[in-house]
This record gives sequence, structure tokens and C-alpha cells, in this order.
Amino acid sequence: MSEKSERPERSERSERPERPERPERSDKKDNIVFIGQKTAMNYVMACLTVVQAGFKEITLKARGKAISRAVDVAEILRNRFMKDKMTVKSIITGTELLERQDRGKFSVSTIDIILACL
Amino acid sequence: MSEKSERPERSERSERPERPERPERSDKKDNIVFIGQKTAMNYVMACLTVVQAGFKEITLKARGKAISRAVDVAEILRNRFMKDKMTVKSIITGTELLERQDRGKFSVSTIDIILACL
Repeated sequence: MSEKSERPERSERSERPERPERPERSDKKDNIVFIGQKTAMNYVMACLTVVQAGFKEITLKARGKAISRAVDVAEILRNRFMKDKMTVKSIITGTELLERQDRGKFSVSTIDIILACL
Repeated sequence: MSEKSERPERSERSERPERPERPERSDKKDNIVFIGQKTAMNYVMACLTVVQAGFKEITLKARGKAISRAVDVAEILRNRFMKDKMTVKSIITGTELLERQDRGKFSVSTIDIILACL
């Protein structure tokens, strides 16, 4: 966040300083949408914002029970908001080992859904 | 079920007549495991039974909230029970249009996870 003041393109988006537009950065992290406990439509809107920012690919990341919501988001985009303009490029599942004081160590499934604009 | 008595290999499995062994049938439907509301371990066991029956591929099918459970089943098999012996071959997502008296028409996301024995 400290480099914001050095970036000349910041002036375009000065009304929203918390989300600087950086579509051509090499560390493509702005096109990752983390799926949590909000309704699917929240994340659909987040994805549309990413598309508007010029990204051609979006990665949806979810774990645990949010996995089904991530699939919902992908399907809503593909069938409704980005109909015939977006496709599921690949889906990768995985397992993360977490540790919490109340539960100890436990595994949680993860999913990465990579969407590509056509 | 009526052809059971004609199949010579039935004798091997005569102690379990309710699950005849038919690994080489052309209509490969016995290797589909539908994921519902039971715990993931139930479906893991169902998959291991399918592997025991000689199938080299298993399709996990789920919709709605059971999607995250389907990913759990795939991950448990891949990392624990079939470690280094099973891989996720492909994952396909989709949408089904359902109709119920109390809800009218509504869409539900679906997932097919195709697992392959190595």
C-alpha cells in the first residue's frame, strides 16, 4: 500500500483509494476472489468488477462449506451475467491443514476455479 | 438383476448377492457415487467398494450444498485411503433447473468429479 502515492494512475481512481487499479501488474493477485460466507451474488459482483478492471482470468478460491458457493458463483457468471463470454478454464481441488485452539489440527478441502473470459 | 443367475462369476461373491460384480459392463453406471447428506466417510466407503469391484474410474456426483462434501470425499480418498493410487481426472460443473411445489422453478449447481485409479 505504501507505493500508492508513487503511482501516477492513482489520480483516475482517487475517489476509491482503497482499491487502486492495477490490471497489468506481474503479481496477478487482484484477480483472485476469495469466497466466504456472504451470498453468492456478492462474489458475482466482485468478479464483474475484476472483469471491468481488464482482467481476462479470475480465480475463485474457497474452502470448506464455501466450496459449493464458489461453484454457484462460477455457474451464475457463466450462465447469466457473462453468458457465452466466460468459461471454466480449470478446477483444482486440494487440502489445507489448519490448526485452531479449540479443535486442534484438522484438514479442510479447498477449491480453485479458474474462469477465463472468451 | 434377473441375469445374476446366468453369470458364472457370481459364485465368488455368493455371500453378497445384493451387489453382483459387473466390472466390464458397457453401461458403466455402477461407478457413479451420488453424494448426499450423509457424512463424507460414508461415501468414501462406497467409493472403496467400487474400486474393490474392479472399476478404474469413479464419478462423484453432487449438487447444491453437497458439492463441498464431494470435494471432501475426493480429497480423503486421494490423500488417505488411496494415497498415490488415485488422481482427480477431471471436474465438471453445471446447473440443473429444478421445480418444486413450494419453491417453484430454481437452479442448482452440480459437480461431477471423475477419479481415476493409477
